[in-house]
Amino acid sequence: MRILGIDPGSHVTGYGVIDQSGNYLRHVAHGEIKARRNSLLSEVLIDTFRKLGAVIAENNPQVVSLENIFYGKNVRSLIRQAQVRGVVIHACTDKGIPVFEYSPLEVKKAVVGYGRAEKRQVQIMVKAILKLDFLPPSDAADALAAAICQANFGKEQPI
Amino acid sequence: MRILGIDPGSHVTGYGVIDQSGNYLRHVAHGEIKARRNSLLSEVLIDTFRKLGAVIAENNPQVVSLENIFYGKNVRSLIRQAQVRGVVIHACTDKGIPVFEYSPLEVKKAVVGYGRAEKRQVQIMVKAILKLDFLPPSDAADALAAAICQANFGKEQPI
Repeated sequence: MRILGIDPGSHVTGYGVIDQSGNYLRHVAHGEIKARRNSLLSEVLIDTFRKLGAVIAENNPQVVSLENIFYGKNVRSLIRQAQVRGVVIHACTDKGIPVFEYSPLEVKKAVVGYGRAEKRQVQIMVKAILKLDFLPPSDAADALAAAICQANFGKEQPI
Repeated sequence: MRILGIDPGSHVTGYGVIDQSGNYLRHVAHGEIKARRNSLLSEVLIDTFRKLGAVIAENNPQVVSLENIFYGKNVRSLIRQAQVRGVVIHACTDKGIPVFEYSPLEVKKAVVGYGRAEKRQVQIMVKAILKLDFLPPSDAADALAAAICQANFGKEQPI
């Protein structure tokens, strides 16, 4: 089973692809889709849709895993992130790939074992779980963590 | 100048098309894109993108006008609406049409003259301004109001 984890953000959308075969998880790819400085929202949306489409075409994932938006930020950035997230979900659905979502707590628990882990702990644990010889950048690590979460918890109901 | 106003919602996205020629405004079309009951979010997003694409292809608007999301709702529905809104903006940008946005206050002021107008007052004023012989349904009226707002205030900076 090939899983694409995505961490949609207002300016950087991280992604990570893993293969699951039984209990064995293998890193396939990861990266970050970054908006140019001072990009308009409309530019970020169209850029994210296109680049994510290319990632999907290249890696052929069977399912997508997304972390829920964390509510504890200000409303303006919450709305901006949610707008990007809508386009991310659409890009996956457009390719016929089911999307599953998990709370930040579930994703962190899947890799660190408890829900209040810091960013760097997630990076270190993702590196250990996938036996990487490098520390993945933060947004890609969060995306890989979402993919690992899907591998461990595999929900039945797509969004 | 042909203006497409859109009122993106979690379950119903209203749209309205007007032609502006100097101070004269003419109603061209309006409607509502409704999700089926119990639709998944992913279905709503792909459906909205496709149907809005058809509305754009049919009416050929030069600009799009959107109302900002009203912050006073619960976070869960705010996020859902913002996700639809992201796809709406992407659908317009994908066709090369610039998108402008206005606060709910600006939109209401453009049609009713003050910012705390109720839904029905907006419908009645849109009917009067566009000399319609029917009361447009609420979500389409809000979309037409956004289009009228763009005709009156025409911002310079797209989102």
